[in-house]
Amino acid sequence: MSETSWSDKEKIIAKEALQKAYELEIENLMAEIRSQVGAIVKIEDVWLLHDFLSAKRHEIDGKYDYRDSMLFFVLSRLVKEGLLQIEDLEGLDKDKLVKIAVLTRM
Amino acid sequence: MSETSWSDKEKIIAKEALQKAYELEIENLMAEIRSQVGAIVKIEDVWLLHDFLSAKRHEIDGKYDYRDSMLFFVLSRLVKEGLLQIEDLEGLDKDKLVKIAVLTRM
Repeated sequence: MSETSWSDKEKIIAKEALQKAYELEIENLMAEIRSQVGAIVKIEDVWLLHDFLSAKRHEIDGKYDYRDSMLFFVLSRLVKEGLLQIEDLEGLDKDKLVKIAVLTRM
Repeated sequence: MSETSWSDKEKIIAKEALQKAYELEIENLMAEIRSQVGAIVKIEDVWLLHDFLSAKRHEIDGKYDYRDSMLFFVLSRLVKEGLLQIEDLEGLDKDKLVKIAVLTRM
């Protein structure tokens, strides 16, 4: 799968989908932070927020990999996490959509 | 200074002062977090909050050292930072109060 070729049009679709998912992820993250901060009553809650941000930063840093060889894995993960819908990938070659759908069930 | 002896009464005064400063520091920290979170509009603001929490956690972890040998340094630092007043240390031997006052000016 890492050697599949992606047409220029497909690359644009995939990268726009990644951008959309990234924006949704950031929006969700900010809402989650506001909610956690609203519930802070003791210092342990502050350190839990810190742990949460450390984990999220690490996760987000590694997740949005725009290299062609990674697109199947990145896109299917985003679909699995609900940050993308298969419909957002409309315009990709049918084989690719099937592969992504299969990967989301793994 | 690290070999000065502290009477039981003085240890209680010092440790109550540390506890008071710690509570004030935590209270200030929570207020600062609420203020930073209120101002978050983009992802960079989230990572700045994360950096701030990392630094604060490290600082607070090392700061409240209850060992007798560290009390002069810890107490004077807290006074310097405005987390304690010299009056909170009333009851300590006069020499100790003078040393702490001198250290706060260093």
